[in-house]
Amino acid sequence: MIIEARKGASPEALEEALDLLRRADLDPKVVAWNERTLIVTDRKPGSVGLAQLAEIGIAERMVHPTLKAQLASRDFQVDPTVVKVRDVPIGGDRLTIIAGPCSVESREHLLETGQAVRKLGTSMLRGGVFKPRTSPYEFQGLGEEGLPLLAEVREATGLPVVTEVLEPEKVDVAAKYTDMLQIGTRNMQNFPLLKAVGRSKMPVLLKRGMAATIEEWLQAAEYILLEGNPNVVLCERGVRTFEKATRNTLDLSAVPIVKRQTHLPILVDPSHATGRRELVGPMAKAAVAAGADGILIEVHPKPELALSDSNQQLSLEEFARLIEELRPLAEVVGRGIR
Amino acid sequence: MIIEARKGASPEALEEALDLLRRADLDPKVVAWNERTLIVTDRKPGSVGLAQLAEIGIAERMVHPTLKAQLASRDFQVDPTVVKVRDVPIGGDRLTIIAGPCSVESREHLLETGQAVRKLGTSMLRGGVFKPRTSPYEFQGLGEEGLPLLAEVREATGLPVVTEVLEPEKVDVAAKYTDMLQIGTRNMQNFPLLKAVGRSKMPVLLKRGMAATIEEWLQAAEYILLEGNPNVVLCERGVRTFEKATRNTLDLSAVPIVKRQTHLPILVDPSHATGRRELVGPMAKAAVAAGADGILIEVHPKPELALSDSNQQLSLEEFARLIEELRPLAEVVGRGIR
Amino acid sequence: MIIEARKGASPEALEEALDLLRRADLDPKVVAWNERTLIVTDRKPGSVGLAQLAEIGIAERMVHPTLKAQLASRDFQVDPTVVKVRDVPIGGDRLTIIAGPCSVESREHLLETGQAVRKLGTSMLRGGVFKPRTSPYEFQGLGEEGLPLLAEVREATGLPVVTEVLEPEKVDVAAKYTDMLQIGTRNMQNFPLLKAVGRSKMPVLLKRGMAATIEEWLQAAEYILLEGNPNVVLCERGVRTFEKATRNTLDLSAVPIVKRQTHLPILVDPSHATGRRELVGPMAKAAVAAGADGILIEVHPKPELALSDSNQQLSLEEFARLIEELRPLAEVVGRGIR
Amino acid sequence: MIIEARKGASPEALEEALDLLRRADLDPKVVAWNERTLIVTDRKPGSVGLAQLAEIGIAERMVHPTLKAQLASRDFQVDPTVVKVRDVPIGGDRLTIIAGPCSVESREHLLETGQAVRKLGTSMLRGGVFKPRTSPYEFQGLGEEGLPLLAEVREATGLPVVTEVLEPEKVDVAAKYTDMLQIGTRNMQNFPLLKAVGRSKMPVLLKRGMAATIEEWLQAAEYILLEGNPNVVLCERGVRTFEKATRNTLDLSAVPIVKRQTHLPILVDPSHATGRRELVGPMAKAAVAAGADGILIEVHPKPELALSDSNQQLSLEEFARLIEELRPLAEVVGRGIR
Repeated sequence: MIIEARKGASPEALEEALDLLRRADLDPKVVAWNERTLIVTDRKPGSVGLAQLAEIGIAERMVHPTLKAQLASRDFQVDPTVVKVRDVPIGGDRLTIIAGPCSVESREHLLETGQAVRKLGTSMLRGGVFKPRTSPYEFQGLGEEGLPLLAEVREATGLPVVTEVLEPEKVDVAAKYTDMLQIGTRNMQNFPLLKAVGRSKMPVLLKRGMAATIEEWLQAAEYILLEGNPNVVLCERGVRTFEKATRNTLDLSAVPIVKRQTHLPILVDPSHATGRRELVGPMAKAAVAAGADGILIEVHPKPELALSDSNQQLSLEEFARLIEELRPLAEVVGRGIR
Repeated sequence: MIIEARKGASPEALEEALDLLRRADLDPKVVAWNERTLIVTDRKPGSVGLAQLAEIGIAERMVHPTLKAQLASRDFQVDPTVVKVRDVPIGGDRLTIIAGPCSVESREHLLETGQAVRKLGTSMLRGGVFKPRTSPYEFQGLGEEGLPLLAEVREATGLPVVTEVLEPEKVDVAAKYTDMLQIGTRNMQNFPLLKAVGRSKMPVLLKRGMAATIEEWLQAAEYILLEGNPNVVLCERGVRTFEKATRNTLDLSAVPIVKRQTHLPILVDPSHATGRRELVGPMAKAAVAAGADGILIEVHPKPELALSDSNQQLSLEEFARLIEELRPLAEVVGRGIR
Repeated sequence: MIIEARKGASPEALEEALDLLRRADLDPKVVAWNERTLIVTDRKPGSVGLAQLAEIGIAERMVHPTLKAQLASRDFQVDPTVVKVRDVPIGGDRLTIIAGPCSVESREHLLETGQAVRKLGTSMLRGGVFKPRTSPYEFQGLGEEGLPLLAEVREATGLPVVTEVLEPEKVDVAAKYTDMLQIGTRNMQNFPLLKAVGRSKMPVLLKRGMAATIEEWLQAAEYILLEGNPNVVLCERGVRTFEKATRNTLDLSAVPIVKRQTHLPILVDPSHATGRRELVGPMAKAAVAAGADGILIEVHPKPELALSDSNQQLSLEEFARLIEELRPLAEVVGRGIR
Repeated sequence: MIIEARKGASPEALEEALDLLRRADLDPKVVAWNERTLIVTDRKPGSVGLAQLAEIGIAERMVHPTLKAQLASRDFQVDPTVVKVRDVPIGGDRLTIIAGPCSVESREHLLETGQAVRKLGTSMLRGGVFKPRTSPYEFQGLGEEGLPLLAEVREATGLPVVTEVLEPEKVDVAAKYTDMLQIGTRNMQNFPLLKAVGRSKMPVLLKRGMAATIEEWLQAAEYILLEGNPNVVLCERGVRTFEKATRNTLDLSAVPIVKRQTHLPILVDPSHATGRRELVGPMAKAAVAAGADGILIEVHPKPELALSDSNQQLSLEEFARLIEELRPLAEVVGRGIR
């Protein structure tokens, strides 16, 4: 149940309502949501309680979403959320193309990639400095030192920047140098981290866990929303199955399901989903046709020399060709590309 | 290794080559392939054997495909196969739309559906009479008695008809009344059945097993091809995963993989993949964008009254709308719809 | 709902009851079950119908199992079924050890294996002549010609024999030469085949489909039971998952679930589950500890020369050692080994 | 490659060897391992490099494990590791039974459970205060305030205590009040957390990720070992599959695989694996038969009132019965229970 308080509701009335709910063991949470105050609980008061709440009279409206992820649900908010990353909207009329290397390798490398993709229709730059790697012996990224490079290339290209964070302690510093924080597939249920990026109020790119159901994914988003951060963008990146021809199995049906059940934007990452360069294009097109709000593509000036995931990164030429192929497709489904 | 014999090669020379391969324990198989004779083995002769083969001189060409499914491979045949079902091509410039009810329920029901979908751009009619059902208590289809209904509606509508067969003994009778035989997901590795539909030389629609890798699927196709039946159409219909929001998880990356590795056409069945009516449209569009040669859609004049799979069948109105949405998309990817 | 008819119930009364159920659209099935007649439907009559049924008075008892596989359920039969294969009981106080090669390769090979495993505590011999192979180029088994070898070795060793059948047409001939018919993992939902082995009344070893839920597996067993064949033995052999360290993932929790929900015996096949010789022993022990009624082990006098599955077959020495390790374990869980 | 330095090797010689490896771009890591110094890299020097290393002469031995998780491998350490948690060994002759509630709910609750399970053969107490929950609306545990309760009950019962940590910042405080830190399934690839518990040098219980391969799991363990913390205990707790009869699918073949490939102890958690009380016993027995070094069981004095996972927690009576059933089984496999 979500109680949206009237704008003028007094702190005393709010506290009275909270007391009422606490005494009924409903464990209410207070959320500052845009300009409003919300009281949220996943349990429902009895009819007496509802009557008492009505008497206190703080509620502009009361919603009972059927989705477990209440704040994410269309029941709570009918209109699609458009998340603004600096001046770049995600979720509106245009497709958002986010491109960049898997890992930030050097300033020159990042700058070259950023300037190139900027010209080709990209809206945002991606680049990892904290790299979650299966083996401790693999390249772990430049770490904190790589963050200023991201900020520098952002200034040079004008492209907002998204980067992955792995632990709550690094949220502040990453927020200082970048414009959007990514929660990777391995951290989708890293709840302290979800709370930390929630508190940061920064735009968050929440990737689906590789073995997470859509329902669990939306509940992970709810952790962020419940901190009063409405700037959540979901990203489907493939799930783990028995099939080994691709790195993961891209579950595109997640796109229309998320669009129907929630008001949040959803992107698709065909690079990590397939792990194979030659499949990135077809799957990017399929994602757009399925209704995705944008795509996330790994691009590298020299993929064969990449320090991580070299098999799945597109060269600049391949990327340019893909964007040209996407333009007419985007138009047919009523979207444009910058 | 595939040895394609010269057109004028004498039976004696062929026999000599076979003897040579048999003595070398290479277990050669003879395949009548269109107008040609092939000798196929999955092992490779040594250099002496190759020299002896060359001396016999029957080979127009010798191919060593890297794919295990040798006859299915692009190494063996570069040009895409176009399977003709009566006058309907599958795999060419146009998208093939196959529509119809999950089960044939009655003559009126089938006729109504057939005539309606015919007007909307459908190329072929589907309808099951032998229904594989998880429970023995569920409706098992009309059985053999339903076959003449399929033939009758085909005559009335001009639409070629595809139906599923479950056992070798029914292949002949199904072939008599219909135009294409479907091997369902549960029978993808029913090898006697694959051989039987292979021997029939009928067009075959081979659905992917719900837990089959793409590699296994192509080897199942190879069982059919190896009987000298080149008329194989693949159909992706979702695989089984942990996700329960959909009946199966549609693996659209199978489309570009199959197109690259083989010369066989591939369709997509979003109805069985998702099991949810509202997802059929988005996934059909995604399939077309990913490069599928057509789609297979369950349509029912009154889905809520269907005797099987009522949740996933589109009404005629929904189907009409979907086809209209697909037309411009098909054009963008260089395909048309009848 | 299962109606068990009284022993003396007249054919007319039975027919009257059936008519009643048919008119109510309950689609009743008549099953000859041991000495009794059953009427089974998966729908439930209304109270009027129940009253009318009571009036006809044919029912010894009426059962409403909660399990979809009604005849398999403990609700229908409390006591565990003991399936007798010749004189070998499966499901009683003793563990049943079934051993033998993956494929029958020759008479000498089979005879040597049979005589060796007989001395070591084995109760039954396994050996495949119809081999379901992923690739059409792989060894497909000796086929029908291998059946007399099985019968011959049975006579020589006194061990009953189980072999796999792949299609309804071969059920009769396989039944003639062997004592138990195996339905392999790929055919668990080959419904015509299930019905055919059901009609044969032979003991049936029903392996779990590699992507089948336990619920689906029990419904497959129900297809056989519903033909009036109560001699069904289940066999867990691993399911398909993302893990590639083993060929399949052995789901031992299926054992206690099956034992609780049904009256059918259940064996475990650690050879196919793991695909790795060194894991067969630990998993066989785990199966016995979990409550399995027996195990199915692939044994080959010279595993490294086996024509199929050579990595998972135990040598005779390894098999002997395993049986010795199993004996005290079997005792602890209240079972013996022959 | 692991270079184990001689005891008397000088810091200068070590530095020289490191320099050599760094110049060859081999990215060497220095690990303080028990009383020794190790230099570890996952790349291999060329023959010239190896000769130069030999010349420096610091190596007691050089090992080239085939396993990616080099420090975990049997190649590096033949003898099984016995991890001591206070005075409780894990990995030796005795089975280690760890029991306790899912969540710590109150001091009385924990004390009652601890005293009860102590009498029944339990070696250690488990209890969660930081609870990772799918929904933000679910009970999140007592948090830091619960830690002193764990310490208090440890003193009262003499049982060492294990508790889960979710973020690096809480490692120190958890280490202060407990004896072993658990990394839960959702955090198996939370690399900053793995490094933090590694640095703590505390015994660590590393659960398998619910979609992690065994190979990935061992590489996660390697993150901890590489911090110079050899006190790692693995715990199999089920993986995610299509089967929904159980919460997860317990992969017991992981036990013999881990025992063969590594020197680390491995426990099994049948409570989380099955999620069903009636399956905990059979799966605990199967785990012991498969060779596990112990089991982790959720126990609650009143399971039906538990604040989390009430379906899978055993009552004290059920737990007592299980332990009695395990004793003779443990003996047969050469283990005892305290």
